[in-house]
Parts: sequence; structure tokens; C-alpha cells
Amino acid sequence: MSARQDALVVFSPSGKRGRFPRGTPVLQAARELGVDLDSICGGRGRCARCQVEAVEGEFPREGIVSRAEHLSPQAETERACAARGRLREGLRLGCQALIEGDVRIDVPPTSQVHQQVVRKPHEARAIEIDPVLSLHLVDVPPPDLEAPSGDLQRLLQALEAEWELRDLACDPALLPSLQSALRDGAWQVTAAVRDGSRLVAVWPGLRERVFGAAVDVGSTTLAAQVCDLATGEVVATTGRMNPQIRFGEDLMSRVSYAMLNPDGAARMTAAVREAIGDLLRSATDAAGLAADDLLEVTLVGNPVMHHLLLGLDPAPLGTAPFALATDHAVDLPAADLGLPAHPAARAWVLPCIAGHVGADTAGVLLAETPWERTEYSLLIDVGTNAEIILGNRERLLAASSPTGPAFEGAQISSGQRAAPGAIERVRIDPETLEPRYRVIGVEPWSNEDAFEEALGPTGVTGLCGSGIIEAVAGLFLAGVLRPDGLFDPEAAARSPRLVREGRTHAFRLRAGPPDIRVTQEDVRAIQLAKAALYAGVRLLLDRLGIERPDRIRLAGAFGSLIDVKYAMILGLIPDCPLERVSAAGNAAGTGARIALLNRAARSEIERRTRTIEKIETAVEPEFQRHFVEAMGFPHGSREFPNLARAVALPARPERAGAPAPRRRRRTRRG
Amino acid sequence: MSARQDALVVFSPSGKRGRFPRGTPVLQAARELGVDLDSICGGRGRCARCQVEAVEGEFPREGIVSRAEHLSPQAETERACAARGRLREGLRLGCQALIEGDVRIDVPPTSQVHQQVVRKPHEARAIEIDPVLSLHLVDVPPPDLEAPSGDLQRLLQALEAEWELRDLACDPALLPSLQSALRDGAWQVTAAVRDGSRLVAVWPGLRERVFGAAVDVGSTTLAAQVCDLATGEVVATTGRMNPQIRFGEDLMSRVSYAMLNPDGAARMTAAVREAIGDLLRSATDAAGLAADDLLEVTLVGNPVMHHLLLGLDPAPLGTAPFALATDHAVDLPAADLGLPAHPAARAWVLPCIAGHVGADTAGVLLAETPWERTEYSLLIDVGTNAEIILGNRERLLAASSPTGPAFEGAQISSGQRAAPGAIERVRIDPETLEPRYRVIGVEPWSNEDAFEEALGPTGVTGLCGSGIIEAVAGLFLAGVLRPDGLFDPEAAARSPRLVREGRTHAFRLRAGPPDIRVTQEDVRAIQLAKAALYAGVRLLLDRLGIERPDRIRLAGAFGSLIDVKYAMILGLIPDCPLERVSAAGNAAGTGARIALLNRAARSEIERRTRTIEKIETAVEPEFQRHFVEAMGFPHGSREFPNLARAVALPARPERAGAPAPRRRRRTRRG
Repeated sequence: MSARQDALVVFSPSGKRGRFPRGTPVLQAARELGVDLDSICGGRGRCARCQVEAVEGEFPREGIVSRAEHLSPQAETERACAARGRLREGLRLGCQALIEGDVRIDVPPTSQVHQQVVRKPHEARAIEIDPVLSLHLVDVPPPDLEAPSGDLQRLLQALEAEWELRDLACDPALLPSLQSALRDGAWQVTAAVRDGSRLVAVWPGLRERVFGAAVDVGSTTLAAQVCDLATGEVVATTGRMNPQIRFGEDLMSRVSYAMLNPDGAARMTAAVREAIGDLLRSATDAAGLAADDLLEVTLVGNPVMHHLLLGLDPAPLGTAPFALATDHAVDLPAADLGLPAHPAARAWVLPCIAGHVGADTAGVLLAETPWERTEYSLLIDVGTNAEIILGNRERLLAASSPTGPAFEGAQISSGQRAAPGAIERVRIDPETLEPRYRVIGVEPWSNEDAFEEALGPTGVTGLCGSGIIEAVAGLFLAGVLRPDGLFDPEAAARSPRLVREGRTHAFRLRAGPPDIRVTQEDVRAIQLAKAALYAGVRLLLDRLGIERPDRIRLAGAFGSLIDVKYAMILGLIPDCPLERVSAAGNAAGTGARIALLNRAARSEIERRTRTIEKIETAVEPEFQRHFVEAMGFPHGSREFPNLARAVALPARPERAGAPAPRRRRRTRRG
Repeated sequence: MSARQDALVVFSPSGKRGRFPRGTPVLQAARELGVDLDSICGGRGRCARCQVEAVEGEFPREGIVSRAEHLSPQAETERACAARGRLREGLRLGCQALIEGDVRIDVPPTSQVHQQVVRKPHEARAIEIDPVLSLHLVDVPPPDLEAPSGDLQRLLQALEAEWELRDLACDPALLPSLQSALRDGAWQVTAAVRDGSRLVAVWPGLRERVFGAAVDVGSTTLAAQVCDLATGEVVATTGRMNPQIRFGEDLMSRVSYAMLNPDGAARMTAAVREAIGDLLRSATDAAGLAADDLLEVTLVGNPVMHHLLLGLDPAPLGTAPFALATDHAVDLPAADLGLPAHPAARAWVLPCIAGHVGADTAGVLLAETPWERTEYSLLIDVGTNAEIILGNRERLLAASSPTGPAFEGAQISSGQRAAPGAIERVRIDPETLEPRYRVIGVEPWSNEDAFEEALGPTGVTGLCGSGIIEAVAGLFLAGVLRPDGLFDPEAAARSPRLVREGRTHAFRLRAGPPDIRVTQEDVRAIQLAKAALYAGVRLLLDRLGIERPDRIRLAGAFGSLIDVKYAMILGLIPDCPLERVSAAGNAAGTGARIALLNRAARSEIERRTRTIEKIETAVEPEFQRHFVEAMGFPHGSREFPNLARAVALPARPERAGAPAPRRRRRTRRG
């Protein structure tokens, strides 16, 4: 049959086209043209992944008159598949439908291997699904007395013959399951291949789904997302407290625990591994999966969490020069971390960047990809330390600022962690100084009628990080706090909420019990924290030689809760058009999920973390200068022109009238 | 300085030569010329591996007048080294001695990396030492606040800079020991690199020796040799019974146990792993080593032992088509086999060849390298099955014959395993029929005066394999047994040792208790076993189209105990010049040791086992014919011309007078 008589096939959305002999299966044509059409069963009509649609009509620009009947009639396999509800109405199985004439074939997103997953709110980009594991159904020749060869060798030969997978290595952990899989599957098995180069698992017959987990190892909370590795679908999400908290609330107290107790690090390692194991078990349970269904786990965490997870000593992270044991990604058997997963499952821990900039920041980077933009992005992940990334496609800088735990509600008189009962939003009337606030888990604001009823038995228990920031910002905007952070003594006359406390005042936000107040010490703690953060950002801006970033993304729970305007009013973040400041959600966790679902992302983050410029704030003399300068609140419009356009900032006081800060306190690490 | 003024250096034994600027260290000159001169410390004068000798004198053929004083005077480092007894008299440290004039340098074998280990008796070849692990002392830059990088990355950079080891991967199991090794060693560590490509272990300061173990997993006994990986020296040898014996004496009863009991295979796997662990512990204890000193373990065993060791189901090996789970070598963490070794230690299990030709035979092949000869070698390893290799540099064939356990003394009326108390040698006077014999563990023969005294309380307990074979051969040579294996009724008149037993006779070797006799059934059992072995050999000879091999090597304990003449008289082995038949010792174990010490041997055996032709005796119709024909004993000189020259064989009886065998029994597998 000459090429002239061959049928023209045009695939969408790729636009790839070619002529094929009549009788060619659509799947085969797609493969020859390099069209992205999924298949696990290799054309046996079993996995139903290769569903396509014949598009009817004339397409003069593409020179084709396409007819659905130019595909062979529906095969028995397809009818059976449709009867089981697995073949969508109007679609055909690409491996069963034969090309009988000119036809235009549409490959719906669900039939593409590299399909994109719709992004969640906050997420910067969609994820292209290209997981490190692929599944392949093969028929393995049974053993033959005349030509003896091992089960494994016949499987490898079949994978080469059917799937063109050459020179595969074999995970030795697979061997004990190989014999029964082949025999139980009557010599038909599904093989899982890692990275196109290593045979890692085998199941009898057709297996269509395998799963992975992305784990965010936070110092306070652990969170896991279990995903279908082929579709990217998140089938379960779970979280729990990090049990290491019993060894120390914040990072540096855990490092101290490791340094002061002979088996301290080992105990924390065991605790976090066990908790992640429980987390994965509850996630797989919730999704109706078995532990064996998990083939891949990715993990992120700050440097201390990273080291404790891997059984490394965190002590060097506690003192200069803050040396990481490794700043590359770590790829190891999931069993080495004691995780409940398939025996061949691997764990991939994202790389740490520097002694205070961890694998969590690598996750943020992967989620945000600031290297794809010409404009300068500022990425901030606030925790006990604030991790800061600044840059664009030309250059990327990373640093960590020792903010301390004030932004998490610690070291604040009425402070608490963001949890039910905590005040998370605060507004203060600039005239009357009357506050209204909102409590986590309670819908109405405090000035609404339904508030007390909605409050429930928990009541109001304290102020979390975003609440204290908004309260301080509101007091500043109302003129109660001066730009240097001290309570203005004259404000006491304006409202009975200003109460005398020692030699200064406090603002009574809510009459107790518990009495919830904002004290001078609280304001000072916030000033110290925000000055540290701002000084770190300033250092990076200076290094890049720019005045302000073009956009700001705030990662983590703090970034989601906070009103960016109030953060800027206090000078936590530098000036920037307000509409260009947004929350990035749990970007570290998103980065772990990206590394789980897309293997190119792994080499990308490894490459990026090696070229990123690490700034160690502790040794930068400029940091101290910026820190001192940043203690006050923004006033006037020189440094904050965008903010000044949005908010009526208090006027710059007369130089002479500005009292010096009562005392200076320096933050210290550890 | 011009090349003319440079000093001429000639190295022996390599003959490599070159000119170097005065002041060049000998080690550096050796490296530049590619001379094989060892060093772990990289020229720091610490490991004392690079000892060389300046040879004095005129060497007109090489155009050099060499003077010892053409090397710089002895350095402080060398004096210290000599004072500690580590620098041999008259030798210099190549890294400290500087070339100051023309000199001839001899590199003694102990200073060569690829030194050859003197072979043991029985062993076919010396082993070139080129282990999979190499040691490298490096100075790692301490962490630097200004240029943060991970401990691991600085170590890898140092290994590249000092040792030109590029793109090393890192075993994640190394990470937890890295931080303390670097700090305890004050940033100087010894790194172990596997196969030139993977960093696997690190120790503080200088570490000069690492060890490995070669393990022979026999169905009856387990044996381990612990070797210094740098010198090949065997520092400990241990053996013990295989505890799987409690699940079945021979291989096929263990396979049955696995098939009939749900956790049968798992219990045998646990038992053998635990026993190998105990064996390694006692070997390292004996050598004054810790488990952590073992970095590498190689293992051999027949297919059933191989499968049970690896946790694989042996059942498929018990029935046609006798499929192996894998016929490639298996490389896995030693920890996966529960072996007490360094956390980064690997186990390398030699490849099985076919369903009945195991990794033990691969070891025999590696020890004997029949592919290096033009003449045809026949290699036989006798156990419950006899594994047979025949071939030369052109072609290699492998088969297994179901000899059954008779050669091991089982299924013999007075039979027993080769152990103290067993008769191992037997001579029978062809005239008087009076026997003399020797007992394992007893020096004098039974007819010597000191015999009864030397015998001790164990006494004489039975006949082991070599004893029964020599007894049967002696009876045949004396005319007591006819060529068809039946007792000649007329022989009864020749000696009272021939006693009536049922419808036939028996030969009373020793009056008891216990009475030790050779019965007609015993002779029949030996005939069946030897016919199976001979038929397998014949099949391979036919396949190659040759009449007889040029040489025969008998591997294993049986091969060491047996007198080859008697084996040939009975027709166990084919005709061959007697001086070309020899014992190969524990060739399987030697092969494991070769794979431990020489990495090229690993790829060689993998390559050879893939090209070797596997003959399955069970499906060869010719096997049955050869088997039946081989039941009788050799008589006349047609088939055994070499034997006939050495021994007076009984004449070929008249055809008419040869009675048919009383009954035929066929060996069966399983």
C-alpha cells in the first residue's frame, strides 16, 4: 500500500500528524508520532487509559475531512469496557480503534501521560504529572526446560521487547515477590519502573494505580498528602502535631536537647519517624489504601527537622558556622526512615540550601519558581526563623532571619499558637479606640450579635501571631503607639482601655477571664521580630541593588492568616504595591508534592539550590545596622510610597521629639 | 630546568621509566608513569604503603647508573615510621624520598596495589588483588560561614581534588556517621569508595585496613573466610553445620519442607541467615575484628541454598522446568540478609547458572577458569547432585546429574558423613581379600600396630563416601564383584569375609560392633550414583564431540578425599591420564574469595554464566541411554585406555555369561 493510499491522522491538541496504513491502531499511530497518549497495558484493551475521541467535520486549514466512521467499529473489548462504566460515552480505546480513513483524533487531558493537575488556591503553578514511577503490563514467557533462564531475566527481556525499556537494573528487594507475582498472574504482571532505569516492583496481572506521599515535616505540625502518582489527584490529606515538641517548643531548644542529652537526637529522630509513620498510615487508611500502595515519599523540613529526620546530629546547626551535613537531596529507601510503605518505596528528601535555609525553602522555591520571572520576587516563609528568597531569572539570593517565635504567638503576654479560641484578626477604631476582632473557628466578628453565641465553650483564649500584628498595627494607626513603638502617654486620656501597667501602659483588648492585653513588652517583641525580618530582606535588596521587590509571596500558615496591609504598616515586609502581595499557602508542602509528581522538578531544585547565593545574616555587619534602623514603624512616604498611597500613615514626628528606644535588646540564636 | 638536567628514574618490575625534575617525590613519579605503587594517605608519610627500594649499580642495558644516595636523605617521617617497626630495613617511603639523581627504584610486591596472593594447595591460580573497595585519606576543608556548603559536599570536593574521584554517588547510610568522623578526625578522614563510583564509609583520621568475607553456603556445612581486602590475606576461617539440616538432610527434602509448610521457606531462610551471622561473628572475633570492620561479603551456594538465603521460594527448583528466580548475580545491602557488618556493607551473591547448577558452580568456574585453556577441562563438584562443567576457551557446557546422596555416605548400610570415626580409605588384597583401611582422624592404617591404640574412644563408626567407593573398587579388582556389580557367588569360597545375606552375599570389612559390611544394595546404590554422574559427563562429551577430557578437576570435600584411580576404576569419571586428574579443593569457596578480592572477576563470571550452554539432563533422551550403559564397571581397555595402562582391570567377560542386572531402578529428583 503506497503512502498515497494511507490514511491521514491529525492529533489534537498536539497538532501532530502523519499517514498510516489502514488497520493501524490509533495507539500505535500516536506512539510513532510521539503523541502523549497514556497506556499501562500496552495495547491489550485492559487499562482504559488510552481513551480518544474522533472529531467529525471538515478542517480545511489542516487539509482533512474527518469522520468518526473512519475508525473501525466498536470492538468487543470496548463494549465490555463501556459496560463496566470505564469507557466514557463517545470515546474509543486508542489501542482497539483501527484507522480506516482520514480522521482527526482528540486526546483528552485524562488520557495524557503528562497531564496537568489543576492548581489549588494559593498555588503558583499547575503541576505537570511526570512521576518517577511508571507502570507497565507485560506478558512474561514461562520458564522453558529447553532454554533455561531466570524469572527475572525473562521479565527484563519482556519489558525490553514490549516497552523498549533497556538495561534496567533491578531492586534486590523485589526478588522475594517476583516468583509468586509471575505465577499468580499466570505470567502476566504489571511492573513498576523507577526513573526509566530501575525495576522496583511487580504485581500479578494488571495494576493501574500506585500512590506516593508528600510530607511536610514542620517543627510544630506534620502534614502529609497522599497522591495518585498517575493523575496527581490528592486522595488523602492528614496532619498532626510534631511529637518532638515534648523535647522543646522551638527549634533551638530541640538542638539544645540534642546537645545536652546523650541520646537526645536519637530520641527525637525516633519520635518524628514514628509520627510520620502514623500519619502515613492514617492517610492511607482514609483513602482505603494499604501501606504497600505507597511507592514514593518526598519530604521537606527546615534544617533541624531535616537532620533529625535523617538521623543526623543537629548540633552543628546550633552554632557558627552552622554547617549542614549535606546540602544535596537525599534519596534513600523509605524503610530506612521506618516509613510504612512498599518494600521498594524510596524516600526523597529535598535539599537544604544553607544552615538556616532548609528543604522547606527548597519546597517553596519549587512551588514558586521565581527563576521563571524577570521581575523580582520576594518569598518569605515565617516561622521561628524567617526564610527569605529574593531574585529573578538572573540571580537568586537566600537568607534566614532570626525572628524568634513572636510571630507564632510565643513570648507575647496573651499569645498562643494559631488554634481555636485564638484571636486572629483585630480592627481598632482610630477615633474611639474600640476594637473588634475575630476568633479562629468562629464566623462572626466580636461586634456582631451572633458572636457570643457562636463562641462556644472554648471562649477566647489568646492572641495568635496575626492577631497581635493587627492589634499593634491598629494601635499605631490610631496614634496610641508612637513610631518608636512606645505607648503615647497622652493616649491614656482617650479610652479606658488604656490601662496603667508599671511605668507604661497596656491596651486591654478584651476583659477576661482571661484578660487579653497588648503590653509594651508585647509591642517590643513584635518590633524585634519584624526588625529582624525586615533587616534580612533589606540585606538581600541591597545585595541585588534594588529598592523594593516587584512582588511578595508569603508562605506558610502565617502568610495565609495575615492581612498584608497590616504587615506592611508595621514594616514586616518592604514596600510593594499591595495587590502584588499575596499568600502562597503551604508552599513547602506544595513543593514536596511537585517533587513527588514531576521528576524533572527534582533535578531542577538540585540545580537551583547549588547556584543560589547564600547570605549568612549572622556575619553581615550591615544586618545589625538594618536591624536597629528597622525597630520603628514606617512613617512618612519615602520608604513606603505604595503603602502611603493605600493607608493614611501617621505623620513623621519631629526629629527632636522622637525619644530614643528605652533599651535595645538584640535577638540571639539558640 | 630542562629535560636534559632532569633525573632518570627506572621502576622495576614494571620497567617504566621517565625523567623528573630533581626534588620530585618517588610516589609522584610513580603516579605520573602509571607505576603500581600503593598509598592510602595520599603522600602524607602515614600509611607506609609506598615502600620502595633504591637499587644500586650500573645497568648498561637500561642506560642508568643508579645510586641510593640519589634519593634525598631519610626524612623525619621515615625515621619515626622505622622506629615503629613499620618501615622495612633498607626501604624508603616513596612519598618522602625525593629524586635527586638517576636512580632505579624497585617496588616490592607488598607495595603494589594489585599484588598477587600466593595460592593455596589445590587452587588453580593466584588472585590479583583489586577489591571493589578502596581507601583514601583526605583533608576536608572545615565549614566556612562565608561560603556555606554541606559536610558531604566538602568531602566529595576533597576526594576529587586529592584523588581525582569524580561524580561519586554517596550511600545515604553513610550520612549519620559523617559529621562525627569529620569532627573527631579534625577534618581529616579516610573514605571508602566502592567500585570507584560510590562513597560508602568514612572514618576519622587514617584507617589502613578493611575486611571482607567469602561465604560458602553448603547444604551440609557453612564456611567463611575473612580477608584483608588490601592484601588478600585470610585472617580467619570458620565453619559450622548448616542448621537447615533439621528441616531435611538433603536438598530435595528441604524443598519439600518449603512446599508442605506455609512458613517453611521463611524458617529456613531465617535459620541460614542467623547461622551465617554467627559464623561471621566468630570469624571476626577470632581475628580480633569488630563486625563494623566487614565492608563486603560474597556468597556462593547451590540453587536451593541460594534461593533460601535470598528469601526466595525454592519450590520452583523442585519440579520441571526448574526455574530460577534470577540467574544474575545479586548485589544487596548485607543488612538485608541480617549479616553483622558495617552499615554500608554489601553482599554480592554469585550468579546461579541453571536450575540445578548453582552459584557454587559459578565459584568453581571462577577458581578454575577453564575458559583460559585450549585443552578440555572437566570440572566435577559432587554433592547430592553432581554439577559438571566441560569445555575450553571455545565453548563451555554445564549440567547437573542426580547422583543422590550415596557418595556422601547416605543410603549405604554402614554409610555415614565424612567425620571422625568414618573409614575413608580401603585397600583389599586381591589374593587373600584381607582389607586394610584408614579412619578419619586416625593416622595409622588398620593393619599397623599403632592403629587400635590411636583409634580412641570414638572407634570405627561407618564408611564415608570415599571409603565405600574404594571398597567397591577393591572388591571389583579382586574379582569379588563382577563387572555388572553383582557379587560373584564363587568368591564366597575364597574368604570367610564373604557372608551370605539373603539371596546374595555381603563383604564384611570389619567385625563389629558395629559390623561394617558392603552389601549388594550398597554396591547397587554406588552403581546408580556413578552411572548418573558418568551419564551426565558422557552427555557433555557427546555434545562437544570429544571422547574424553584432557584433564579432570574434582571440587569439594569428596574430590579431596577420593583416590582418583579408584573413582576411575568404578567409572565415576571418564578415562583420562591419571596424572591429569586432581582435586580442586573447596573451589566454590575459592571462587567466592576471588569475587571478594577482584572486581574484574565479578563481571567475568557474570559474562561467562550467560554464555555457558546449559544442558538439562532430565529432558535429554540420551541421558537415560548413557545411564543404563554406565551401570556396570569398566572392563577392557576400549573406553578406558589410560586407566588400563595404570591398573590391571578384570578382563571383559563373555557376552553370554553376563547376567542381566537383577532389576533396574531409576533415580528420581525430589
